[in-house]
Amino acid sequence: MGRTSDAKNKILTAARSLLEQRGYSALGVAEICKTAGVPKGSFYYFFESKEALALAVIDERWADERRDWERILRGDAEPLQRLKQLFEATESRQREGQENCGVVSGCMFGNLSLEMSNQTDAVRERLQEIFEAQVDMVETTITEALGRGEITAADPREAARSVVAQLEGQVLFAKLYNNTLQLRTLWPNCLALLGAHKPQVAELA
Amino acid sequence: MGRTSDAKNKILTAARSLLEQRGYSALGVAEICKTAGVPKGSFYYFFESKEALALAVIDERWADERRDWERILRGDAEPLQRLKQLFEATESRQREGQENCGVVSGCMFGNLSLEMSNQTDAVRERLQEIFEAQVDMVETTITEALGRGEITAADPREAARSVVAQLEGQVLFAKLYNNTLQLRTLWPNCLALLGAHKPQVAELA
Repeated sequence: MGRTSDAKNKILTAARSLLEQRGYSALGVAEICKTAGVPKGSFYYFFESKEALALAVIDERWADERRDWERILRGDAEPLQRLKQLFEATESRQREGQENCGVVSGCMFGNLSLEMSNQTDAVRERLQEIFEAQVDMVETTITEALGRGEITAADPREAARSVVAQLEGQVLFAKLYNNTLQLRTLWPNCLALLGAHKPQVAELA
Repeated sequence: MGRTSDAKNKILTAARSLLEQRGYSALGVAEICKTAGVPKGSFYYFFESKEALALAVIDERWADERRDWERILRGDAEPLQRLKQLFEATESRQREGQENCGVVSGCMFGNLSLEMSNQTDAVRERLQEIFEAQVDMVETTITEALGRGEITAADPREAARSVVAQLEGQVLFAKLYNNTLQLRTLWPNCLALLGAHKPQVAELA
């Protein structure tokens, strides 16, 4: 049993790395097994299909990122400061990835949304759930800031979605230019999108 | 010669459609030729490689979209109105695509940025050039609006990049949710990002 679950972990680790570097379509089961150092039979013992593996990798990644999102956005800092911390954590994660593998790999959920959301309903639905969860958490934070009179966003849900969209768009540029400095604009842009009051902007910028 | 260039066009048309639906990696030369109804020999007569074909498709698409961007952003309307027209044109284009093929296919340049910018330098450079050209055009428009005292953006270049990033992020959501209504927020978000003066926001919203 020990060896068995070890093989599963090796497959997941190899798939995560290959999926980040090259996307879903470029990925073959044979290559995953070769990289993982496990026989092909092991793959189908643990995963019904490449799609099932992709879902497992997505879930694992979101479980990991979600911990960060929850720790930050449900933390003790003031609501706008929590959003700032979220962007700083995003920049750190992308910079670490770049230091480890030479390139900014971007957001796995954004990458897969653009590569394959048209192709498999199961992946599309999972990615929708993840982005909804992100928007939920940002919305809660925005609603708190609204209650404190710090911002003027008319529709907290739409504002939250726009903040996450800005994040995905800037991560796209960070990946395309292989440059995480792009992500420094997330914080001032978030304040602008939320209609933060000017003194707050000056104080927090 | 007539038949020859006809084959080239058929290959480009098939590749454009397949690239939009499924991305680059999922695409094979044999399938492109089958869809185009041309023998495989024709492919290599016109294109050195799949990468060369992808570059040709990207160039063709940008030549087409660039005409729209230039017509709108260099038009006679007031600068902020031109940006509004750009977002309306983006929404129309995505909605037409959805009506024709059932799904929102998103922005080809954004899709390829996330799928393959890490994989081929030639494609990465071409996509960078296209986004720089977009940011250039938006920056010029923003600078005009600044000169008219309509907005307060501190750094027109950064502001232009953020407007394009917001566009890419919202198009990502439009694709993931197969819903172009998402794009309606581009205009108010652009005004917020540029620090448009309130009366302007009320007037134009």
